Order: sequence, then structure tokens, then C-alpha cells
Amino acid sequence: MPGVLLDMAISLDGFVGNSDSTDPGLYDWYFDPPAQSKAVIDELVDTTGAIVLGRGAFGTGEDAEGWDDSPYHVKHFVLTHRPPAKSMNGPIEFVFVPDGVQRAIELAREAAGEKYVTVGGGADVARQLLAAGLVDELQLHIVPKLLGAGVPLFAGLEPGSAAGLSLTKTRVVDSPVVTHLRYRVGASAG
Amino acid sequence: MPGVLLDMAISLDGFVGNSDSTDPGLYDWYFDPPAQSKAVIDELVDTTGAIVLGRGAFGTGEDAEGWDDSPYHVKHFVLTHRPPAKSMNGPIEFVFVPDGVQRAIELAREAAGEKYVTVGGGADVARQLLAAGLVDELQLHIVPKLLGAGVPLFAGLEPGSAAGLSLTKTRVVDSPVVTHLRYRVGASAG
Repeated sequence: MPGVLLDMAISLDGFVGNSDSTDPGLYDWYFDPPAQSKAVIDELVDTTGAIVLGRGAFGTGEDAEGWDDSPYHVKHFVLTHRPPAKSMNGPIEFVFVPDGVQRAIELAREAAGEKYVTVGGGADVARQLLAAGLVDELQLHIVPKLLGAGVPLFAGLEPGSAAGLSLTKTRVVDSPVVTHLRYRVGASAG
Repeated sequence: MPGVLLDMAISLDGFVGNSDSTDPGLYDWYFDPPAQSKAVIDELVDTTGAIVLGRGAFGTGEDAEGWDDSPYHVKHFVLTHRPPAKSMNGPIEFVFVPDGVQRAIELAREAAGEKYVTVGGGADVARQLLAAGLVDELQLHIVPKLLGAGVPLFAGLEPGSAAGLSLTKTRVVDSPVVTHLRYRVGASAG
């Protein structure tokens, strides 16, 4: 079983978003990718069997606006106590999970079959997953921007709680702008 | 003229040190480097004409303990109002600069000749250099550790002040553990 892959774009100085929720442009490369990045995206689409995401990553509105073009035609499990009021009629099936990240992962694993459960954020979901030991692989897209401030990759992580995790690099894909790093996440080596 | 190179090791989540000044092990690879990392280190030694560093990076003690084995036999300009009490008798000439980062860079540029002024930190020196527009290139050694908290790469940088800088990736060296990324730093693209 491939397991749970946390996949996020991150600025060179370690932030996954601006503090004020404005777009820092960390996914600009995604929409017009160089060949090397296109291969990474295609692989992600091919190997993803289900998606887990936070309410903010889903969208702040009351419908699934902006999702119609998504290439991931798999179940999306959205962590929220506040599902949108409108029903979803797009090509993607959204499941709103009110009872925590562990439950969302459990449901997503069932839906994913032999493929990955891919988690694209936000940072709070990433932190909860990491703290619960639920991340098997980590793929970071290193974007050559310095934000200077913002939302850290693992916002609010208990200091030291990540320090025990052992990461083993499994791949580096160099692309003209962004650099794609992939790691296997294991328990503490000591 | 090669200019000023900021060269630092950084955790995967964007920290260059622990908050409590204990060693997070970000330079472990440096002391027993794989061949690819050895080449990066050798290049750095060969191309460095002078070094600028903060008082903390120099050491907290009253002598130059630990510097005798340094392969960088060039002038080291240490930013400090508090030079060590003992005179320095090791193989490296230390110059203690009390009047700011701009002056330290000016002196180091003179000393470096046709080679780089290399700056290895700390984070406060990195921030001051970046804010003053004095960094020409950035080399980051991405270490597969998650610290969860600590000293960010550009600790105390005015929010947004780095956002305008344009970074152009010039090289990626993949090594079994660490990944070496190098960028050219330019003024804002817009």
C-alpha cells in the first residue's frame, strides 16, 4: 500500500502561505509547468486514489467553485464542521468529514484502494497528520521565493515533536523553476 | 566579480537553528560528506576569498576555539561590538568589525579580490544582508530534518521585504542526504 503522501509547495524560506491568506504564488509553476514538473504532476494524478484536504484548501465559498478543471477524478475528503450549503454537482465527489483527520484518512484509505491518499494541505492539516504519525511520504515543491513571513509548513506544531521523525530522501526532480523533493517519513531513528 | 554568496544549511521546514541555540545537526553532512557534497564544499573553499560571519557563528567563547581545522584560509570578518579578549594565534586571521554589516562586506570585498565573499550566517546577519540588498547569490543546503520550530532562515525580516526579490535557480546538486540548491538574487521583477 502506498500510504499517505503529503504534497505541498513551499517557499525557499519555509512558508506554505501568506499570513493574511493572500496568494503568495507558490503554485504558479503548476498551471504552466515545464516538462519536468509536468511529469511530476502527471505521476501525482496517476498514483492518487483519494484526496484529503482542509476546509481552507477546499475553498472559502459555499460551493465547489474552481474544482471543475481538477484532473483528480477521485473522492475528495474535506475536513470540516461546516460543509457548504449548496450541493455539489461537479465531476468530483466531495465528502465532508466533521470528525477529525484520523477519520478522514481512514475513509480516504478505503477509497484509495491500491493508490495513494494525497494530502495537499493546508498547513494545519499537515501538522495534525504529522503529529498523529499518519504521513508516509512527503513531497515538497521548493519555489524560489522568499516570503520573509507567513504560514510555516507545519504551523503550530509542538516544538520538538517533529524533530524525532526520520526522513529519507527518495527523489529530487530539478525543473527550470521549481525543485521537487520527495522523502519517506519514518519513526525516530533515535 | 563573483560578489556576495550567502551559504547556509536549512531544515526542510525552513529553520537554520534551534530557538534555544542547541545544535539541530544541520551540518552533520559537512563532516563526513558524500562525494557530491564534498565537491560542493571543495568548490566553496576554492572560490571563497573572504568570509563574513556573525558573533554567534564565530563562537560564544573568548578565543577562536574550533577554527584551527577550518579549510578556509582567508580573512574572516566577524560582526561584533564585543571582540574576544584573547588575541588570535591560529592559522586564520580574524578581523572584528563593530560598525555594521555594510562595512564588513566592504572590507571583505577588498580582501576577497576576484573571489566570493562568503557569508555563513547567522540568521540575523543573513537578514541584514538581504534587507540591504547585499546578497548576490544564495546557496542553501536542504537537510531532511523537520525541526517544527526554531530560528527561521531570515529571522526578523520585515514581512514582505523579501517578497520583491527575484531568485533564479542556477544549480541543484543532489547528494545522498542533503540537497544543495543555488540561486542568483536579483532586484524585484515587478
